[in-house]
Amino acid sequence: MPQTLLVVGSIAFDTVRTPFGLAEDVLGGSAVYFSVAASFFSPVRLVGVVGEDFPEEFRRVLQDRRIDTSGLQVVRGGRTFRWRGSYAGAMNEATTEDVQLNVFGGFRPVLPEAYRATDLVFLANGSPVTQMAVLEQVERPALVVADTMNLWIETARQPLLALLAKINGLVLNDGEARLLTGESNLTLAAEKVLDLGPGFVVIKKGEHGALLVAREGAHRRRTEGRLVCPLPGFPCPLVRDPTGAGDSFAGGMMGRLAEAGRHDFGALREAMAYGTVTASFTVEDFSLRRLERLGRQEIETRLAAYREMLAI
Amino acid sequence: MPQTLLVVGSIAFDTVRTPFGLAEDVLGGSAVYFSVAASFFSPVRLVGVVGEDFPEEFRRVLQDRRIDTSGLQVVRGGRTFRWRGSYAGAMNEATTEDVQLNVFGGFRPVLPEAYRATDLVFLANGSPVTQMAVLEQVERPALVVADTMNLWIETARQPLLALLAKINGLVLNDGEARLLTGESNLTLAAEKVLDLGPGFVVIKKGEHGALLVAREGAHRRRTEGRLVCPLPGFPCPLVRDPTGAGDSFAGGMMGRLAEAGRHDFGALREAMAYGTVTASFTVEDFSLRRLERLGRQEIETRLAAYREMLAI
Repeated sequence: MPQTLLVVGSIAFDTVRTPFGLAEDVLGGSAVYFSVAASFFSPVRLVGVVGEDFPEEFRRVLQDRRIDTSGLQVVRGGRTFRWRGSYAGAMNEATTEDVQLNVFGGFRPVLPEAYRATDLVFLANGSPVTQMAVLEQVERPALVVADTMNLWIETARQPLLALLAKINGLVLNDGEARLLTGESNLTLAAEKVLDLGPGFVVIKKGEHGALLVAREGAHRRRTEGRLVCPLPGFPCPLVRDPTGAGDSFAGGMMGRLAEAGRHDFGALREAMAYGTVTASFTVEDFSLRRLERLGRQEIETRLAAYREMLAI
Repeated sequence: MPQTLLVVGSIAFDTVRTPFGLAEDVLGGSAVYFSVAASFFSPVRLVGVVGEDFPEEFRRVLQDRRIDTSGLQVVRGGRTFRWRGSYAGAMNEATTEDVQLNVFGGFRPVLPEAYRATDLVFLANGSPVTQMAVLEQVERPALVVADTMNLWIETARQPLLALLAKINGLVLNDGEARLLTGESNLTLAAEKVLDLGPGFVVIKKGEHGALLVAREGAHRRRTEGRLVCPLPGFPCPLVRDPTGAGDSFAGGMMGRLAEAGRHDFGALREAMAYGTVTASFTVEDFSLRRLERLGRQEIETRLAAYREMLAI
């Protein structure tokens, strides 16, 4: 049976330069990419903050979909979070050129009463103190998954470790996994993440895909003592802008888990494949443009192609 | 029906330092890793050169398997090729500390008469002039696959392009593919390699696996206009020494193709999975140690686990 899904994260104006062009003051932010990606699979409850400069057309991108924006705080007289960055060469990493936290800097998420009973919670990248404050507002969630980044691993390790003890899954990239665990071998780094508390970890590797490692639970599939699933990236001949790929991946994954209403290893693995395919659309154009004109059927068609590729 | 398989490449004394220790003057070289990996699937005809210092125990590693060493030249008074290198951190790239080409520097491969009618030919990394000279000695091969490296792309581009026009498949790593084609997107780089002649290309990505892109031929499987198969690396919690992983991958792949006697896209894809799994054993110990104590059944067991992981 489908479950409810909540995301807390950033909402931003992005200015992005890639070899394919420049996009100025376009819609972005982790919670936005996550919500739009997840909305192909499930309704989404969004918690975030914007300033008075947040335009009606951006709000409409969210509201035209199954995204509940009653948790969207608008700060009077405030300005929305702004990020400016660029990508070059193989576009595997963004160079951040400017960050203006604005209203996001003082963000204290408050869940609307109607959000408190949510099954699946995704804590997009943010201070682990804030992530924990959100978690404490949710009543008995069925599955809590968080993202994090180098900044928090380096400057807020203790709050992050406290959070890891309380969540079911962690999503982070390969460099972050190595930094968090001090282990350069990714499979071992994943196992060390599990020692910190989460039942599963998904290590994102950009164009190289993702690695899921899970503790044994009520899962049926075992592989050499661990539950492991490495998935390659979907081969994308057209990558115009990688911004939001990781959050789209997480959104597709969590959206599909909410839709499926199961969190066993097989469900996680299938959800990761959906996340991979959803993210492969995001990168085809700037901002949310490709996702805005995407339909579920296209996702299914590409997932079928992906499955066919992997039918070794 | 099984086909015959020939490899031409280097035979070396390697000295390798990794975070797991030091191995001095151990058996190595592209043709050696290739041959031993391929021998799990098919007999192998080896063409290479060594000096008088090549010990009987190294020769026995080859001869104890299905490796025909009648193409092994021994240069009187010569010394065998020596390579010294090290790996640190995530061990994704070797730092070469010393190279002594010795007898390999003047290597002019001459195929024994009995080798001239060989079905499958693998030209391990070497000068494209030498690779072409080998190719000219083979009578109507069914499938010719070559490896190359940055050195030849930069210093011998014309001979390399001439070779590419004559071979069926190219195996190279991601950095080499980008350098060869000037294209940073790997899927596009792969397609550009096909424009240079080969019917298929396998881009090796180390721990991240490999990407196969093939031109349409008599193949049944199509994906969005191309024949594409991205495979993740097998998750290895124990990586002691990555030396020879790429050549073991190629050996497992070509050995399996020889065994299967088919080269359609499905066969290439399955062979690439065998190559991936074979290489995942190589890295578990220094030199050929893990492959020496490996059996076909272990390969099959791990392949089954790999297939299970990918059954999304």
